Amino acid sequence: MGLISKRAAGKALLGDGFSFSQQAKAARRAGFDVLDATLGTFYYDDGSFRGYRTVKEILASMPDEDRFSYAPITGGERFTSAVLDWVFREHRAQIEENLAVKVVPTPGGTGAISSAVHLTLDRGESALLPDLAWGPYVGILAESGVGAERFPLFQGDAFNFARFCEKGDELAGRFGKLAVILNDPCHNPTGYTLSPEELERLIAYLNGKNTPCVLIYDIAYLDYDGAGREAARAKLRLLTQAAPHVLIAIAFSASKSFCAYGQRLGALILLGRDTATVKTLYDAMGFHARHTWSNTNRAMITLMTALASDENRRRALDAEIEVVAGQLHKRAEAFRAEAQDANLPVHPYHGGFFLTVPVADNERVVRELQENEHYFFLPFHQSIRVAICAVPLARIKGLAATIRKYCPDRE
Amino acid sequence: MGLISKRAAGKALLGDGFSFSQQAKAARRAGFDVLDATLGTFYYDDGSFRGYRTVKEILASMPDEDRFSYAPITGGERFTSAVLDWVFREHRAQIEENLAVKVVPTPGGTGAISSAVHLTLDRGESALLPDLAWGPYVGILAESGVGAERFPLFQGDAFNFARFCEKGDELAGRFGKLAVILNDPCHNPTGYTLSPEELERLIAYLNGKNTPCVLIYDIAYLDYDGAGREAARAKLRLLTQAAPHVLIAIAFSASKSFCAYGQRLGALILLGRDTATVKTLYDAMGFHARHTWSNTNRAMITLMTALASDENRRRALDAEIEVVAGQLHKRAEAFRAEAQDANLPVHPYHGGFFLTVPVADNERVVRELQENEHYFFLPFHQSIRVAICAVPLARIKGLAATIRKYCPDRE
Repeated sequence: MGLISKRAAGKALLGDGFSFSQQAKAARRAGFDVLDATLGTFYYDDGSFRGYRTVKEILASMPDEDRFSYAPITGGERFTSAVLDWVFREHRAQIEENLAVKVVPTPGGTGAISSAVHLTLDRGESALLPDLAWGPYVGILAESGVGAERFPLFQGDAFNFARFCEKGDELAGRFGKLAVILNDPCHNPTGYTLSPEELERLIAYLNGKNTPCVLIYDIAYLDYDGAGREAARAKLRLLTQAAPHVLIAIAFSASKSFCAYGQRLGALILLGRDTATVKTLYDAMGFHARHTWSNTNRAMITLMTALASDENRRRALDAEIEVVAGQLHKRAEAFRAEAQDANLPVHPYHGGFFLTVPVADNERVVRELQENEHYFFLPFHQSIRVAICAVPLARIKGLAATIRKYCPDRE
Repeated sequence: MGLISKRAAGKALLGDGFSFSQQAKAARRAGFDVLDATLGTFYYDDGSFRGYRTVKEILASMPDEDRFSYAPITGGERFTSAVLDWVFREHRAQIEENLAVKVVPTPGGTGAISSAVHLTLDRGESALLPDLAWGPYVGILAESGVGAERFPLFQGDAFNFARFCEKGDELAGRFGKLAVILNDPCHNPTGYTLSPEELERLIAYLNGKNTPCVLIYDIAYLDYDGAGREAARAKLRLLTQAAPHVLIAIAFSASKSFCAYGQRLGALILLGRDTATVKTLYDAMGFHARHTWSNTNRAMITLMTALASDENRRRALDAEIEVVAGQLHKRAEAFRAEAQDANLPVHPYHGGFFLTVPVADNERVVRELQENEHYFFLPFHQSIRVAICAVPLARIKGLAATIRKYCPDRE
């Protein structure tokens, strides 16, 4: 028919995480005892999926208008304030004193990341991201005609600065611009968290470039940092060190923080010393949002402002999140202890929903675990990702040894 | 800083409907007796904003997992079926027998329209739309680098076929493709509904072109057609007359149909005789959705499937919608009767949330009504739009005469 646009031609969603999840669900429906560790959705140790009580109470008690009517495209001042309160807590003032700050609500963290790319990168350019990274980044870049250049995330058990800088220099030279996408803390898929020193060094590197730089900083797992919510937020103060030519585009995911995944709310937080650039990007973001998805889930926006205006409820939600973070911690500890016994390597993990086992022959291992054990994982770059968020502690037991069985050839 | 992408540079949301609404709200907060007829949000005659009882009951009773976990990117088979049931009712089988059909959920009708443009139009091309049309279409097109060509919607009180065809011929010749955006039934801003004969003639015109054609058919107000839900749906059978080179991209808005605006759910329904093209666009749509907003509001998806599986609840919701349609009808009747008495012209209205008064000097009239009367309307092409959805019947009284006062110079 010749109707498809050039930008959409040939695109299809293949090997996406959601398709692995559909396979796992189909196997379960077929009667198999499935272990579904595909998606970033938390299940409690009793096997249940539950929303947070505080979230449900607030959603259930709001007036119809705060739930069903339109939210402002850019969320409104109270929403901006609520997001900054949640993300930066007591460090908010320091952030706002040092940087221009603008916030726009988005449908989930994905909407924030796709917007940041749309706003800052041109067709034919490339962004820099680690070899180990959330799969959809590449598709998000492709939707804007932008390529992905990779650097190896690790050197030993630390962030690979040498290779990061090497690639960064190359891209800055090639495009007169350097865009970096990083998921931190509790990096998906490994659970790695940059140390404050590493984040500081990364910003110092960007500060040293003589081209505009943007750090697209995906903080989807901010609230599940093994070091605790305070440490995760204290680290964010380092963002104030960014030089005027460095823009920070934070992708915050309320859906993830509140375990309300399908309720789709995130925010793009634009931070920078260059007030004019932040304002220009904010204006363009309003235009982009209005003409892509228009406004966002009003009930979730009301939830954010309700949390910001009620310290008790915020504390109650903090406590519920801590239960989840605690269960994640125990699962990771159990898996890693057994992995050590089984001589199965695991990439450095500091917190969050996932950990990753390096396996050169990852596609085969994922397939065989599916076929023989009905265990479902996602393959990542030379590794498989174990979504410990979805596996109750009782089922973590023996998991590392089982995976080890399928990796006999590793060095 | 030189960071903004070429596609985003210079974009900002100016004169958007939501900004007029913010002004109205500010005036109300300042203590004025405001009449806010800016947005497409229904208020009952008692002045209240309320969600539908059936919608609220279903949302309140669903398990956490059906509300908070991720929905599949393309919604799943039950969602597809539920959307087709709702939109086509007893005509669904006839649609599916004659056309390939694919459905993908979107954040509101906006997400469906922006996706249809993204999928079918290339940078530098133009789409055809009426001079009187929802404002954001132009911004949606601009986000894909696509221009807007206009034709006058009316010739007398009917669709202006002569000018539509003239422009259609021109665009088809220029681009080797013809894309048309139409909002029907209950066209925003006028409330005009194409007669079955007009829709049939429009499809026959597209069938007669020797270039690929796409009709982006925005049915946001399907459930508020003054002719009733059955007539609105019977008309949709005419879509089966589309030739193989004509794609129909329906933008359905569950948010509008269910008066759950801020809950953001719509669907892109791809229809065509050319199965391969429909499949190709569907695949590209999955990729686009995944990498723009990922999945959509799971609770609203569950709501759709719940309605499809429970005839009683569906009927209960139908009855609630009829109350709203009935109040809209009375408001329109009252306004038009008074307009006739006051010698104020009104564009043909058949149903829906808005009606439109032709006023050459529209910006001045809108401004003066704001300043002198605290009445807030949106300016449209040589007209002002009265959102009767937002004005209780008691306040409709006298409105036409007041508007007339500010239009002394009309012929």
